[in-house]
Amino acid sequence: MRLRHKPWAKEKLNSFPQYFISEPENNKGKWRELFQNDYPIHIEVGTGKGKFVTGMAKANPFINYIGIELYESVAVTALDRLIEAELPNLKLLSVDARNLCDFFAEGEIDRVYLNFSDPWPKSRHAKRRLTHEGFLRIYEEILVNEGEIHFKTDNQKLFEYSLQSFSAYGLRLNYVSLDLHKSDFEGNIMTEYEEKFSSIGQRIYRSEVRYLRKR
Amino acid sequence: MRLRHKPWAKEKLNSFPQYFISEPENNKGKWRELFQNDYPIHIEVGTGKGKFVTGMAKANPFINYIGIELYESVAVTALDRLIEAELPNLKLLSVDARNLCDFFAEGEIDRVYLNFSDPWPKSRHAKRRLTHEGFLRIYEEILVNEGEIHFKTDNQKLFEYSLQSFSAYGLRLNYVSLDLHKSDFEGNIMTEYEEKFSSIGQRIYRSEVRYLRKR
Repeated sequence: MRLRHKPWAKEKLNSFPQYFISEPENNKGKWRELFQNDYPIHIEVGTGKGKFVTGMAKANPFINYIGIELYESVAVTALDRLIEAELPNLKLLSVDARNLCDFFAEGEIDRVYLNFSDPWPKSRHAKRRLTHEGFLRIYEEILVNEGEIHFKTDNQKLFEYSLQSFSAYGLRLNYVSLDLHKSDFEGNIMTEYEEKFSSIGQRIYRSEVRYLRKR
Repeated sequence: MRLRHKPWAKEKLNSFPQYFISEPENNKGKWRELFQNDYPIHIEVGTGKGKFVTGMAKANPFINYIGIELYESVAVTALDRLIEAELPNLKLLSVDARNLCDFFAEGEIDRVYLNFSDPWPKSRHAKRRLTHEGFLRIYEEILVNEGEIHFKTDNQKLFEYSLQSFSAYGLRLNYVSLDLHKSDFEGNIMTEYEEKFSSIGQRIYRSEVRYLRKR
């Protein structure tokens, strides 16, 4: 994604505390209090401009969503969407995914979404891929028992890498589509990327994997 | 594959006992005696006209191959190839894959190849797919500890099904390519099918999976 520097981003984000959580470490273990309900919590790591997570939150009022976007200048676009949609079941954070364990307690999260994550094509950057073993360990920590990751990408190499990474970690592949938009999968909500790339005929890959029962 | 009935097939197969093993149950546990060496044994289940297995046997003289083709009228074409190539490290069988345990002892086989297996697209025929759990159990029986299955297909649905079936069985995905002919995989030997379908731009999917260590 092209990044435009927006010096005003932080201030704008902080002026909507009902949507943007600026100090999420204070909510660790207490997210359901914030949402004021006991619904499942799904997070999207790498929310970008927020089209997916906003669409999901609209479609599923009995699920709480948290969109996590590293760049504040991107997160503000997601905030704009959220301001317009006025959704009580969606919060936004701007934090680094490597620190997720600082913001969520063990087993506090029910599902992780990864959509069109940066492929980091060079081998020496493999650790930065959001499906790298290091991240799988982090998600496992914050996920419930037998929690799931739902992952979409148009990047063939990243998908191949991720399937192998999931398998090596012992995750079970419950669903895979090698051409999502020609599959019978229902209820797909597209990201900005997905709309753009699928409109030029690019295949979208999708998988659902599940952690094994903890001992 | 279109099947032409060849009433003379059985007789021809039986007249080349150095290549075609008509009573493989007699060799159970004794295949290395037949090959007169201690090299690994790789089998191809659904050998068809034998292009792949003949090519592999030529390229890898220190591996023994066994091509297994249900239909005698197809196996004779593989036999013709083998007669021409005069390979000491390749044998052919015409048996049903459901009975593999009758022909091979526990741990006697080092690798299973599945190439362009019949997709059996209808759900009620899922059990006939060579990557169905029932077959995975059979391969596990005859394979060495941590034995591998190498699988290629142009059929997207079969590949999706197979990845899920492998994962559900607990197999580890060591390699996956979602577009083999555009990948950096080296030493690929094409089947007849593969030549035909890849020449019209069809993607070829390929995976390598490994059984977990037996307890």
